[in-house]
Amino acid sequence: MKFKAEIDIMPLKELLDPQGKAVTSSLKNIGIPEISDVRIGKHIAVELEADDEETAGTKIDKACKELLANPIMESYTYHLIKM
Amino acid sequence: MKFKAEIDIMPLKELLDPQGKAVTSSLKNIGIPEISDVRIGKHIAVELEADDEETAGTKIDKACKELLANPIMESYTYHLIKM
Repeated sequence: MKFKAEIDIMPLKELLDPQGKAVTSSLKNIGIPEISDVRIGKHIAVELEADDEETAGTKIDKACKELLANPIMESYTYHLIKM
Repeated sequence: MKFKAEIDIMPLKELLDPQGKAVTSSLKNIGIPEISDVRIGKHIAVELEADDEETAGTKIDKACKELLANPIMESYTYHLIKM
Protein backbone atom coordinates (compact mmCIF):
# COMPACT_ATOMS: atom_id res chain seq x y z
CA MET A 1 0.00 0.00 0.00
CA LYS A 2 1.18 3.47 -0.76
CA PHE A 3 0.77 6.28 1.74
CA LYS A 4 1.39 9.97 1.76
CA ALA A 5 2.53 11.50 5.06
CA GLU A 6 2.43 15.17 5.97
CA ILE A 7 4.81 15.90 8.83
CA ASP A 8 4.96 19.17 10.80
CA ILE A 9 8.04 19.85 12.89
CA MET A 10 7.73 22.83 15.21
CA PRO A 11 9.97 24.45 17.82
CA LEU A 12 8.83 23.49 21.35
CA LYS A 13 6.42 25.99 22.95
CA GLU A 14 8.80 26.50 25.88
CA LEU A 15 11.54 27.80 23.59
CA LEU A 16 11.96 31.20 21.99
CA ASP A 17 11.52 31.22 18.22
CA PRO A 18 13.68 34.13 17.02
CA GLN A 19 12.73 33.61 13.35
CA GLY A 20 9.06 33.80 14.31
CA LYS A 21 9.67 36.96 16.38
CA ALA A 22 11.41 38.60 13.40
CA VAL A 23 8.52 37.72 11.10
CA THR A 24 5.98 39.08 13.62
CA SER A 25 7.65 42.47 13.56
CA SER A 26 8.07 42.42 9.77
CA LEU A 27 4.33 41.79 9.47
CA LYS A 28 3.72 44.92 11.60
CA ASN A 29 5.96 46.87 9.24
CA ILE A 30 4.02 45.82 6.14
CA GLY A 31 0.73 46.78 7.77
CA ILE A 32 -0.64 43.56 9.27
CA PRO A 33 -0.31 44.13 13.05
CA GLU A 34 -3.30 41.81 13.67
CA ILE A 35 -1.09 38.75 13.20
CA SER A 36 0.79 37.75 16.33
CA ASP A 37 2.53 34.75 17.86
CA VAL A 38 4.23 33.57 14.68
CA ARG A 39 6.05 30.28 15.07
CA ILE A 40 8.03 28.81 12.20
CA GLY A 41 8.83 25.17 11.67
CA LYS A 42 9.22 22.67 8.88
CA HIS A 43 6.62 20.94 6.77
CA ILE A 44 7.77 17.68 5.19
CA ALA A 45 5.70 15.75 2.65
CA VAL A 46 6.79 12.16 1.88
CA GLU A 47 5.47 9.10 0.10
CA LEU A 48 6.00 5.63 1.48
CA GLU A 49 5.26 1.96 0.90
CA ALA A 50 3.95 -0.03 3.86
CA ASP A 51 1.72 -3.05 4.47
CA ASP A 52 -0.76 -1.14 6.62
CA GLU A 53 -1.30 2.19 8.35
CA GLU A 54 0.32 1.06 11.60
CA THR A 55 3.57 0.02 9.87
CA ALA A 56 3.56 3.31 7.96
CA GLY A 57 3.21 5.21 11.24
CA THR A 58 6.10 3.28 12.80
CA LYS A 59 8.35 4.15 9.85
CA ILE A 60 7.45 7.85 9.99
CA ASP A 61 8.08 7.86 13.77
CA LYS A 62 11.51 6.31 13.20
CA ALA A 63 12.36 8.84 10.46
CA CYS A 64 11.30 11.75 12.68
CA LYS A 65 13.12 10.53 15.78
CA GLU A 66 16.36 9.55 14.04
CA LEU A 67 16.70 12.16 11.34
CA LEU A 68 14.04 14.80 10.79
CA ALA A 69 13.31 16.31 14.20
CA ASN A 70 15.62 17.30 17.03
CA PRO A 71 13.69 16.19 20.15
CA ILE A 72 15.55 18.65 22.39
CA MET A 73 14.19 21.63 20.48
CA GLU A 74 11.34 20.37 18.32
CA SER A 75 8.15 18.36 18.45
CA TYR A 76 6.53 16.65 15.49
CA THR A 77 3.05 15.67 14.38
CA TYR A 78 2.00 13.86 11.23
CA HIS A 79 -0.99 12.49 9.43
CA LEU A 80 -1.14 9.68 6.92
CA ILE A 81 -3.25 9.60 3.77
CA LYS A 82 -3.85 6.36 1.88
CA MET A 83 -3.12 6.94 -1.82
CA MET B 1 -12.67 37.15 16.85
CA LYS B 2 -9.43 35.31 17.33
CA PHE B 3 -8.23 32.81 14.77
CA LYS B 4 -5.34 30.42 14.51
CA ALA B 5 -3.90 29.86 11.03
CA GLU B 6 -1.70 26.95 9.98
CA ILE B 7 0.22 27.84 6.82
CA ASP B 8 2.23 25.38 4.70
CA ILE B 9 4.73 26.78 2.23
CA MET B 10 6.15 24.21 -0.18
CA PRO B 11 8.57 24.32 -3.11
CA LEU B 12 6.67 24.16 -6.43
CA LYS B 13 6.30 20.63 -7.83
CA GLU B 14 8.06 21.66 -11.05
CA LEU B 15 11.24 22.56 -9.16
CA LEU B 16 13.93 20.31 -7.78
CA ASP B 17 14.10 20.19 -4.00
CA PRO B 18 17.76 19.45 -3.20
CA GLN B 19 17.15 19.40 0.57
CA GLY B 20 14.40 16.81 0.06
CA LYS B 21 16.66 14.72 -2.19
CA ALA B 22 19.40 14.76 0.46
CA VAL B 23 16.93 13.64 3.13
CA THR B 24 15.61 10.84 0.88
CA SER B 25 19.09 9.37 0.59
CA SER B 26 19.84 9.84 4.30
CA LEU B 27 16.65 7.89 5.07
CA LYS B 28 17.97 5.04 2.90
CA ASN B 29 21.22 5.12 4.88
CA ILE B 30 19.46 4.80 8.23
CA GLY B 31 17.42 1.84 6.97
CA ILE B 32 14.13 3.34 5.79
CA PRO B 33 14.28 2.94 1.98
CA GLU B 34 10.45 2.73 1.82
CA ILE B 35 10.17 6.51 2.17
CA SER B 36 10.55 8.34 -1.13
CA ASP B 37 9.71 11.68 -2.72
CA VAL B 38 10.60 13.81 0.27
CA ARG B 39 9.76 17.48 -0.16
CA ILE B 40 10.65 20.01 2.50
CA GLY B 41 8.93 23.32 3.09
CA LYS B 42 7.94 25.59 5.94
CA HIS B 43 5.11 25.30 8.42
CA ILE B 44 4.04 28.59 9.99
CA ALA B 45 1.54 28.82 12.85
CA VAL B 46 0.12 32.25 13.64
CA GLU B 47 -2.66 33.81 15.70
CA LEU B 48 -4.69 36.73 14.43
CA GLU B 49 -7.56 39.05 15.26
CA ALA B 50 -10.20 39.57 12.58
CA ASP B 51 -13.92 40.39 12.38
CA ASP B 52 -14.78 37.23 10.43
CA GLU B 53 -13.23 34.27 8.64
CA GLU B 54 -13.16 36.05 5.27
CA THR B 55 -11.19 39.01 6.65
CA ALA B 56 -8.82 36.60 8.39
CA GLY B 57 -8.23 34.79 5.08
CA THR B 58 -7.52 38.07 3.29
CA LYS B 59 -4.91 39.00 5.90
CA ILE B 60 -3.19 35.63 5.70
CA ASP B 61 -3.16 35.85 1.89
CA LYS B 62 -1.54 39.27 2.10
CA ALA B 63 1.07 38.04 4.59
CA CYS B 64 1.91 35.04 2.40
CA LYS B 65 2.11 37.03 -0.83
CA GLU B 66 4.10 39.94 0.53
CA LEU B 67 6.39 38.30 3.06
CA LEU B 68 6.19 34.60 3.82
CA ALA B 69 6.21 32.83 0.44
CA ASN B 70 8.25 33.46 -2.69
CA PRO B 71 5.69 32.91 -5.50
CA ILE B 72 8.42 32.15 -8.05
CA MET B 73 9.58 29.09 -6.14
CA GLU B 74 6.89 28.28 -3.59
CA SER B 75 3.17 27.73 -3.22
CA TYR B 76 1.19 28.11 -0.03
CA THR B 77 -1.91 26.63 1.54
CA TYR B 78 -3.51 27.45 4.88
CA HIS B 79 -6.41 26.63 7.08
CA LEU B 80 -8.04 28.76 9.73
CA ILE B 81 -9.31 27.58 13.09
CA LYS B 82 -11.62 29.73 15.21
CA MET B 83 -10.27 29.94 18.77
